Amino acid sequence: MPLIVQKFGGTSVGSIERIKNVARRVKRSVEKGNKVVVVSSAMSGETDRLLSLTREITNNPDPREQDQVVSTGEQVAIGLLSIALKSMGVDAISFTGWQVPIYTDSVYTKARIKRIDTHRIRKELEEGKVVIVAGFQGIDDYGNITTLGRGGSDTTAVALAAALDADVCEIYTDVSGVYTADPRIVENAKKIPVISYEEMMEMASLGAKVMQIRSVEFAAKYGVKIHVKSSFLEEDGTWIVEESEDMEDIVVRGISHDLKESRITVVRVPDKPGIAAKLFKALGDNNIVVDMIVQNVSHKGFTDISFTVNKTDADMAEEIARKVAADIGAEDVERNDRIAKISVVGLGMKTHAGTAAKMFETLYKEGINIYAISTSEIKISCLIDEKYAELAVRALHEAFIENMEGEIQYE
Amino acid sequence: MPLIVQKFGGTSVGSIERIKNVARRVKRSVEKGNKVVVVSSAMSGETDRLLSLTREITNNPDPREQDQVVSTGEQVAIGLLSIALKSMGVDAISFTGWQVPIYTDSVYTKARIKRIDTHRIRKELEEGKVVIVAGFQGIDDYGNITTLGRGGSDTTAVALAAALDADVCEIYTDVSGVYTADPRIVENAKKIPVISYEEMMEMASLGAKVMQIRSVEFAAKYGVKIHVKSSFLEEDGTWIVEESEDMEDIVVRGISHDLKESRITVVRVPDKPGIAAKLFKALGDNNIVVDMIVQNVSHKGFTDISFTVNKTDADMAEEIARKVAADIGAEDVERNDRIAKISVVGLGMKTHAGTAAKMFETLYKEGINIYAISTSEIKISCLIDEKYAELAVRALHEAFIENMEGEIQYE
Repeated sequence: MPLIVQKFGGTSVGSIERIKNVARRVKRSVEKGNKVVVVSSAMSGETDRLLSLTREITNNPDPREQDQVVSTGEQVAIGLLSIALKSMGVDAISFTGWQVPIYTDSVYTKARIKRIDTHRIRKELEEGKVVIVAGFQGIDDYGNITTLGRGGSDTTAVALAAALDADVCEIYTDVSGVYTADPRIVENAKKIPVISYEEMMEMASLGAKVMQIRSVEFAAKYGVKIHVKSSFLEEDGTWIVEESEDMEDIVVRGISHDLKESRITVVRVPDKPGIAAKLFKALGDNNIVVDMIVQNVSHKGFTDISFTVNKTDADMAEEIARKVAADIGAEDVERNDRIAKISVVGLGMKTHAGTAAKMFETLYKEGINIYAISTSEIKISCLIDEKYAELAVRALHEAFIENMEGEIQYE
Repeated sequence: MPLIVQKFGGTSVGSIERIKNVARRVKRSVEKGNKVVVVSSAMSGETDRLLSLTREITNNPDPREQDQVVSTGEQVAIGLLSIALKSMGVDAISFTGWQVPIYTDSVYTKARIKRIDTHRIRKELEEGKVVIVAGFQGIDDYGNITTLGRGGSDTTAVALAAALDADVCEIYTDVSGVYTADPRIVENAKKIPVISYEEMMEMASLGAKVMQIRSVEFAAKYGVKIHVKSSFLEEDGTWIVEESEDMEDIVVRGISHDLKESRITVVRVPDKPGIAAKLFKALGDNNIVVDMIVQNVSHKGFTDISFTVNKTDADMAEEIARKVAADIGAEDVERNDRIAKISVVGLGMKTHAGTAAKMFETLYKEGINIYAISTSEIKISCLIDEKYAELAVRALHEAFIENMEGEIQYE
């Protein structure tokens, strides 16, 4: 009997009517002969409402107590969903994170799952019940409630699918899958039927609208098959699976873009060993996550080091960079908030040459200047002026996806 | 170091501003050198909001899942209160029912507390923290969340005070104590400084506005001193304590009235053994709680049996009474929904004669007819037409309380 984990996001359970819809969908899966474990987020808006209650008291609420408050959002949703299922004649039972239990570390507001005790869930499944689990939350070894951070319900679903060895983890969302580019920018963007974990992770900016990247890492680690699909449509969405050889036939899976970063450049850095380490250690010590790092070969003993950080960290990163710059005798620090990172992503790059050249040429033809370049095995990213972001995505989509359609089959 | 349990009702924590007020009050108690355990209800309106969500799905929600949903109300309140205290520099930690744990039976929506493990609370108190516990909820032996039923936060507070051997259990509410009569009816009603558990229980209708009667039973059983007081005023309220001899100096502690009952009379019942048992067993089997029962001596082999039940149970009680009446050959069943039960309550009745006579005389002088009479050691109740209820309360208050003021001292 197949075992499915189905995860529903806040929008899918955003009202009583929608909760009933979810219950009907779960009922259909049961009637098809599946064992079903459901993971639910809080009703949309509820987590924000609870957070804002804590913020009315203080801007800096105690994190343990914030988790105590915020975790109630999912608890309400799972209880309501269970009531809806039982009222439709489907036996069901809901569990909070601590009732499963889902054990995490004690890092409140962004805890990580350590282990899941599946004993109780298996028992209820064997008794023919649908088991509904609160997403986003767990319990630490001292009996405190923890939350996994925003989007953590995806991680709960994938972790449960791994622990229960489920046949598939279905992520229901308000979009119908992962697209070759943002459909709001590219009219001809197409739903991707199958994508590898690695490609999905590299397409962070596209993926973030669909599921949390940390949960994809988790799925990759434990080989959990994910199926991202719409809660409102019956059609297939996007499967996220382990890479296979035939997936390399498609050179570029999608074009992603990211407007959330700032670029900071330390100018005329004396090219001595340990300088870069000094800079990035200082950033890391302040919990600043650095994305791209670009350093070119030095020129007369000096070089420039550029890096990008999330815009929310840019002020602090600039301050730190200025301190380090003074320390190491660099000339200046420059900052640019008006940048876009455009990436082409695809497993096929490993085996197909010329992707980088084609990307640069496409941008050049549109008159778009490239500020910086960074590559991985399956991704090429260019930093450009943010005013060209949409133009670049459209041009690259046309060059790499639309013009290849004779050769590769998207459904 | 004195240990105080302080319970705050929904109105006291009804907004962020009020939660801050509660935190300030708790802080003052700490600064006076007390160890403090706080029990909080859900923010006012929240339990009703959560219940109505379940009712939007079905009129008959699964009780386990209803408790799963409803128990979040207190969880939010305790988290917010803890955040408020910590933001004021008072170290605090919040616990849900299962975190304490407070063990109950598995009767969802009206569970009873079986035992409390105080180990964790004592540890946190020793570390100098204020411990904030969610009222109204617990956990059964199988890890399911239970709720104690409406007003259950009072029971949580009293049970914790008993388990921790606290010096006092303070019940903060939106009235300033227990009064000699309902102040909305009797202008001269006075706050009662000290009342015994037994009197308090007999004054159910006055007490219900202040605290749940089941929690007073609990306090009586374990000798927990209760202090009912206003959350908004600093003055002393009403102490509910074990009876002592000097309390008998006051013959009548207060006048209570109850408009929530219906009277049902089975007319011309053949006076044979076992008839009453048959009737009341049938009612009991249907979970109908009977309050007053009046049966007079029989007359030519027939008697009338009257009883009162809560108005919400009256339809079912009448139906059952009609079935039993047909069965036992009674003549008819009569029902009256427009009745009031007026009671005078006081420990002093045990030792002072003439209270009943004075009560009947007072009602007679006002032209009020008595339908039925029932007495206990410390209470006399009369059923009358509900239209005379306020008149009766005023007249009895004048006769028993106001006119005695020369003799007895209320503060």
